[in-house]
Amino acid sequence: MKSAYERAGVSIDAGNESTRRIKKHVKDTHNKDVLANIGSFGGLFRFDKKRFKDPVLVASTDGVGTKLKLAYWTGRHDTVGQDLVNHCVNDILVQGAKPLFFLDYFGTSKLDPGSFEMLVKGLAKACKENDCALLGGETAELPGLYRKDEYDLASCIVGAVEKSRLITGKSIKEGDRIIGLPSSGLHTNGYSLALKSLDAKKNLKRRYRGVGILKNSLMKIHKSYLKPVSKVLDRVDVKGMAHITGGGLIENIPRILPKDLDASIKKGSWNVQQIFRLIQKKGKVAEEEMHRVFNMGIGYVLIVAKKDTHKTMSLLAKERPRLIGEIVKGEGRAVLH
Amino acid sequence: MKSAYERAGVSIDAGNESTRRIKKHVKDTHNKDVLANIGSFGGLFRFDKKRFKDPVLVASTDGVGTKLKLAYWTGRHDTVGQDLVNHCVNDILVQGAKPLFFLDYFGTSKLDPGSFEMLVKGLAKACKENDCALLGGETAELPGLYRKDEYDLASCIVGAVEKSRLITGKSIKEGDRIIGLPSSGLHTNGYSLALKSLDAKKNLKRRYRGVGILKNSLMKIHKSYLKPVSKVLDRVDVKGMAHITGGGLIENIPRILPKDLDASIKKGSWNVQQIFRLIQKKGKVAEEEMHRVFNMGIGYVLIVAKKDTHKTMSLLAKERPRLIGEIVKGEGRAVLH
Repeated sequence: MKSAYERAGVSIDAGNESTRRIKKHVKDTHNKDVLANIGSFGGLFRFDKKRFKDPVLVASTDGVGTKLKLAYWTGRHDTVGQDLVNHCVNDILVQGAKPLFFLDYFGTSKLDPGSFEMLVKGLAKACKENDCALLGGETAELPGLYRKDEYDLASCIVGAVEKSRLITGKSIKEGDRIIGLPSSGLHTNGYSLALKSLDAKKNLKRRYRGVGILKNSLMKIHKSYLKPVSKVLDRVDVKGMAHITGGGLIENIPRILPKDLDASIKKGSWNVQQIFRLIQKKGKVAEEEMHRVFNMGIGYVLIVAKKDTHKTMSLLAKERPRLIGEIVKGEGRAVLH
Repeated sequence: MKSAYERAGVSIDAGNESTRRIKKHVKDTHNKDVLANIGSFGGLFRFDKKRFKDPVLVASTDGVGTKLKLAYWTGRHDTVGQDLVNHCVNDILVQGAKPLFFLDYFGTSKLDPGSFEMLVKGLAKACKENDCALLGGETAELPGLYRKDEYDLASCIVGAVEKSRLITGKSIKEGDRIIGLPSSGLHTNGYSLALKSLDAKKNLKRRYRGVGILKNSLMKIHKSYLKPVSKVLDRVDVKGMAHITGGGLIENIPRILPKDLDASIKKGSWNVQQIFRLIQKKGKVAEEEMHRVFNMGIGYVLIVAKKDTHKTMSLLAKERPRLIGEIVKGEGRAVLH
């Protein structure tokens, strides 16, 4: 018999079943610093203070946004988990921090243990790849709040950096070089516009030549830049970094620029993937707006002294880095030309 | 003219306006340990390692759940912000941790800067009351995902505790006493059932005698137990604590119990607020289920040695503590009788 709570749309059994299913995946991400298991109220993470003289914790929260729609439509829920972890890892990496732990919040109209497990498996996979513990999470079944069969996924990451090695952008000077690292695709930004432009709901369900390629392009996993960038941080005095998310190069680079300098970016100095051109054409989106909404092929940016350009590019060779611009006198803007 | 992105349902202006409005509230919560302002990618929190020999970070994530419905219906968005912070503070307090910082995630169909500001004001107020920095947050406008005019609010809290002072429940013994602290009402749990039982959507909009009292009862702010409990932690060897959230006393106390002991709880030893009886009567909910879904008047539980009972109760006198039971031989359950 259903309990009154279940009649009100909340299933305690689905919750327990979900917890059972994800245990193994979560545990796989736990290193010696994780002290507690699922079930305790908060996740416990031993902070090894010997590793730092003056530690700074760096924390960020984010969601996957409209990219989740693709997960509902295609029934693939693991990649959005990876998207979210990698996104968060990049967000704290720009300040020089390496991840310690990650927590997720999953809100849905009706908890489906199967797709939830797939999702957590994706979170756990990416956490392991980024040396990050999946320390905790919350699932909420909110039938009156979410649309049928849909969910939102949010998260929080906490990392640490030595205070003297914090990267703030303050030391950026005229003449510094801007190096761009290719994105894998849209990453997790601009999907409201992308799906509308492509009339995706209809087109992704139809069978036609190229639908597979389109789906794959749109679902490409958000790239984590942790490993290649860490290699650079150990060897080069990096002055500033930006993760190119919503707002594109135009809005993200200014977040670290001194007020009297501009980032002068040379269009055409990197490869813009086909998917962006398709969105632009189908949605009749202005070029300027494309660059304000999408990463347009560059997912991460490093700013280094001119003399360090070659060394940095060599260290990043596998990522196919591009020299996309330089720092000039200005007023804190990123200017594309 | 609306941009293509705005036609796809995402307003960059509303986002910027929201960021502008909340700046002051957020800044008010920042202490000397907070290093960065809004706009940088991650929030920066200097971790004062001198305060700890062997620090453990305690992290938890949570949401407000269906209580948000009341915020939509009444247009009051500040109290749910306070609910969420206080809920999170209690969740890490049970392990002995005091909060360092808090981050929020706000997902909505359409960002309304006015109600969003009210909400962040509530978050900031509660953060200040709990000596916690509001370190960061994310807003996501997801028109295809949330129902019209609705939003979800999730969060993450990080606190710290000295490893030797971690409270785990391991030292709980037969004969220990269970002290309950009154809740202010439903706190943030069981609202799906409560609202359905009370036919709240209809009843809260009608004008009738008692509607104000009903609304007030349902919107009572989740209580933070940080200050009174901290006083106890400094003076008493507390063996275990539980925050009574979804699952009630029955499911939350076992989270800290050794496997061979039960918590024997005496019904009638505390006051069950009218609102719970009203929900039970109107929704025809079984007594057993009421205790599995709601806190039923007890929001927080401390377990101490028999000899420390009086001292603990005295230190908590202002909270009107109740001796609600004791630890007996058993199998890791909480048994009400």
